[in-house]
Amino acid sequence: VHRELKHIYEVQKEVSLLTSIGALLEWDQQTHMPALGVSRRAQQLRLVSKLVHGRLTSPSLWKSLRKARKMRLRGMDGAVVRELSKEVSKLRRVPTGLVEELSQETTLAHHAWKQARKSNSFTHFAPFLQRLVSLKRRHAQYLNRRLQPYDSLINEFEEGMTSSKYNRLFSFLQKELRYILDSVKGSRLYRRQRPLRIRVDKAHQRLVTEHIAGRMAVTPDRVSVDVSAHPFSISIGQQDVRITTRYTNALDSLSNTVHESGHALYELGLPTRYIHTVLHNAPSYGLHESQSRFWENMVAASQHFWKGYARHFNRLAGIHHSWRQYYRGINLVKPTFIRAEADEVTYNLHVILRFEIERELMNGRLRVRELPQVWNERFHELTGLRVRSDNNGCLQDTHWAGAAFGYFPSYCVGTVYASQLYARLLKSMPEAEKLVQKLEFKPIIGWLGRKVHSKGNTMLADDIIRKTCGEGLNPRVFISYLREKYGELYGF
Amino acid sequence: VHRELKHIYEVQKEVSLLTSIGALLEWDQQTHMPALGVSRRAQQLRLVSKLVHGRLTSPSLWKSLRKARKMRLRGMDGAVVRELSKEVSKLRRVPTGLVEELSQETTLAHHAWKQARKSNSFTHFAPFLQRLVSLKRRHAQYLNRRLQPYDSLINEFEEGMTSSKYNRLFSFLQKELRYILDSVKGSRLYRRQRPLRIRVDKAHQRLVTEHIAGRMAVTPDRVSVDVSAHPFSISIGQQDVRITTRYTNALDSLSNTVHESGHALYELGLPTRYIHTVLHNAPSYGLHESQSRFWENMVAASQHFWKGYARHFNRLAGIHHSWRQYYRGINLVKPTFIRAEADEVTYNLHVILRFEIERELMNGRLRVRELPQVWNERFHELTGLRVRSDNNGCLQDTHWAGAAFGYFPSYCVGTVYASQLYARLLKSMPEAEKLVQKLEFKPIIGWLGRKVHSKGNTMLADDIIRKTCGEGLNPRVFISYLREKYGELYGF
Repeated sequence: VHRELKHIYEVQKEVSLLTSIGALLEWDQQTHMPALGVSRRAQQLRLVSKLVHGRLTSPSLWKSLRKARKMRLRGMDGAVVRELSKEVSKLRRVPTGLVEELSQETTLAHHAWKQARKSNSFTHFAPFLQRLVSLKRRHAQYLNRRLQPYDSLINEFEEGMTSSKYNRLFSFLQKELRYILDSVKGSRLYRRQRPLRIRVDKAHQRLVTEHIAGRMAVTPDRVSVDVSAHPFSISIGQQDVRITTRYTNALDSLSNTVHESGHALYELGLPTRYIHTVLHNAPSYGLHESQSRFWENMVAASQHFWKGYARHFNRLAGIHHSWRQYYRGINLVKPTFIRAEADEVTYNLHVILRFEIERELMNGRLRVRELPQVWNERFHELTGLRVRSDNNGCLQDTHWAGAAFGYFPSYCVGTVYASQLYARLLKSMPEAEKLVQKLEFKPIIGWLGRKVHSKGNTMLADDIIRKTCGEGLNPRVFISYLREKYGELYGF
Repeated sequence: VHRELKHIYEVQKEVSLLTSIGALLEWDQQTHMPALGVSRRAQQLRLVSKLVHGRLTSPSLWKSLRKARKMRLRGMDGAVVRELSKEVSKLRRVPTGLVEELSQETTLAHHAWKQARKSNSFTHFAPFLQRLVSLKRRHAQYLNRRLQPYDSLINEFEEGMTSSKYNRLFSFLQKELRYILDSVKGSRLYRRQRPLRIRVDKAHQRLVTEHIAGRMAVTPDRVSVDVSAHPFSISIGQQDVRITTRYTNALDSLSNTVHESGHALYELGLPTRYIHTVLHNAPSYGLHESQSRFWENMVAASQHFWKGYARHFNRLAGIHHSWRQYYRGINLVKPTFIRAEADEVTYNLHVILRFEIERELMNGRLRVRELPQVWNERFHELTGLRVRSDNNGCLQDTHWAGAAFGYFPSYCVGTVYASQLYARLLKSMPEAEKLVQKLEFKPIIGWLGRKVHSKGNTMLADDIIRKTCGEGLNPRVFISYLREKYGELYGF
């Protein structure tokens, strides 16, 4: 066994190093790469993927894993063998030809999506999307023959989730969110509300970014902050995480920075002893997102935060507003066409739309060419807004061009988990709101570290939440939070 | 043969992609990597080296090369087989254990060198340097048993050069440079001269950098400009080159930018048809350096340049000086302890010192512990300055900590080549000085492209120069240039 385990750990280390090299190539592509570098970059990324795939699907690794499984190991070794076997057996089930075709088609589709956005027309993108839908339906069958295609894909992002669980989640949320939205819309304040317009130049926004990241212990010695068109975070090493933001408006860049810093804290908090193994990971996209939402929504969009932060924000940005102005400004509810710009109340209505559409695409009940019409009708039902341009509708997100069907619901899972974790935190650490107001985040970071980050990929996301909160995914907690917060804000 | 060549080109492509990935890892380490990322970075770089080494030394590649050599191919295929065989046979001669030991010892030595600089004491660094000297002496023997160790190492940087050629070069230069320096020092102007002190903030220095790089066709779509402690340039892809500068003072950052842009133009000018092969390279470090020196010294430190550029510089930097003030300022001759800060006249005196010391270290005639004393005595003879601190003396450069013995003379070769190329340019393009004054660099870039860049690694550096200039390395051209320029500047 010793020899088999040694081999397993060696392969994992090489895979982990190669994967982190791939992450650097991607980070660079979004931040500093000269535009003309793109074709060489595609070759570099393809080579890294090929090397990773080759190592993970090698017969010798599979042999070692098979022998190791028979030993029924416990503890870390047992978890490594279990999780790695899952991953490898999936990779071995999917034919290499399909993997390559998918990789090629997503590159083409991404390009076509960009072109389609330039002409604001879905028609150009449709045939590419159609091919991705077919390929992913085949892919799903290889992943798990016994499941509906969409269920197989969900499982890649949220292990243990199913479309029927999501159905229940989303029909509950749709009803409740619509109720809250209607209450907001019916309020006197809603009709009078104006967005908070503040003009802050990039240099001052950068000061805010550095300040808030520093308060969250996201410091330059382990996290770099760069600028990219779409903010993201990526881990290059245990002590080397990259986040990006954009300097469009000061409240937005603050939210982005806090959101990505939440992701960064998760990466930095993964246990060192799991390094270079399959356990040095979050167990799901939703749980990762819960950490960014926790900081962005529960903390940095709270009253307590703004009572404490307003003066720093004013000083750093060189402006003057009251904490209440910021608090109202950052929590303004107003239906919008763009998911990424949506407020807390309407955000998940956007997710519901995408969930319904991709489920039907994957299960063969919706044709690609019908997509814009269905999108626009359904969007109107959900938000009351009429989509008049594909760029504001079904072309707004890049996920489908990347064949990431099944990903959107994880955003919702993350939001719900975040509210559950925050509710639990307030019970175990009654002074948490005061700490937020004082911007003393260390005890909260420590708590999240113990309850979430330190588990690595040894348990399902829902089990991590259950262990901490006493129950798995529960959207009622999220709804109570919204009702209380927005009831107070809009007086209903 | 078709099959063998196909294999050879495939391996080269993978090696070229891996090498460019390694280049990105290094660039990132010097520019954006959080400090704590360093240990993972070392692992990533080690893995990439291992993969490259494995591919180049694989028996199947060697077999293909052997078969291909027998076919006596011509043209590009012939050159590829010849150059790649040279490289591979060298790699195969050096035991892997020695390569690994060297890699490990240079990492340790680099760290020790940094520590030694903190305490300003060579003693701490000495044992590490001693080990590197021994390892490199062994390494040299594997490279070529018939040569003196130092000659083998020189050949790694300047193929075709020998220490006896360098001896002749440097004894000529030492005499001539001392004569010019003495003439400068004896002039009335020298005694009255003051450095040009201009204060320009970083934002304005950045404007100058972008402007001059743009004029040199070093544009953001194919070259990124970042900041690093030591300016450098590195190629990630045919259309993706990175340069760095530093914003310490405006003339310095201009020179750095122009220097690194010269390197970038070489990389961008390598022939596309040689991409992913061993021919897509400069044939020597000296020839690469000739391109940076050409732009830094011959162009951007010339009268004509400043006659044209002063008004741009004033406008961009928000200051007001005459072209003559800049021209004098950038060409101020004054012996200094630090090579990297030296003027054109004294620069190569620094190189001579390093050449003599490393030759004697390598050939066993100088002991490491005697180094500071020898350095200080010899430096005094060469420049008249007395070194009172190791940081200003034998600890100033990082090259020896990287085991790059034999590299320094290439700086001198580059300077001499640059003067030869410029003299030749003035003959073939009599309007060149006017073009420089008008900042119209395109015809000059085109000329360098045809004469130098487009050759790739198909000829020895000295043959490229001979083909263009009618003769190989000739320091007399450099000395005439210096005499004329500094005679005019200092009135002797």
